[in-house]
Amino acid sequence: MTKFQAEIDVMPKKEILDPQGKAVTGSMKNLGLAEIQNVRIGKHITLELEAESAEAAEAKVDQACKNLLANLIMESYTFKIEQVA
Amino acid sequence: MTKFQAEIDVMPKKEILDPQGKAVTGSMKNLGLAEIQNVRIGKHITLELEAESAEAAEAKVDQACKNLLANLIMESYTFKIEQVA
Repeated sequence: MTKFQAEIDVMPKKEILDPQGKAVTGSMKNLGLAEIQNVRIGKHITLELEAESAEAAEAKVDQACKNLLANLIMESYTFKIEQVA
Repeated sequence: MTKFQAEIDVMPKKEILDPQGKAVTGSMKNLGLAEIQNVRIGKHITLELEAESAEAAEAKVDQACKNLLANLIMESYTFKIEQVA
């Protein structure tokens, strides 16, 4: 078994309003950072797992995203996997 | 002025307990994914900004992270900037 680390990004889908991001975009103005636009806020998740191969690890992480980490109606996810030395 | 896009990760610091991540690690077991360990959950933020140079854009994003996006007592952040074509 090899140890892998996964980095997952879960973001609200483009066509869905992101009220948290909108609020932060507005706050940037008050901070004197009016040139910052279109803030969108999602989740960044790191995790570790053991698997027999990189393919098996990817399948596990994909399953975790689909079943628990992302709400596929409103969110999309991307991830990358790295072998831990 | 050039348009840049920034991708920011804000994560709870290593020495700080992440209760949300702990809860998700526990839930992985119930999903039959017991090999997934050490889940940590932070924020992934994307934003757009205009700046005169990549250095100026980096300075602005750094300022936004320090002043608004990350709580430096409990969180650390990393980001990368890309020029939008």
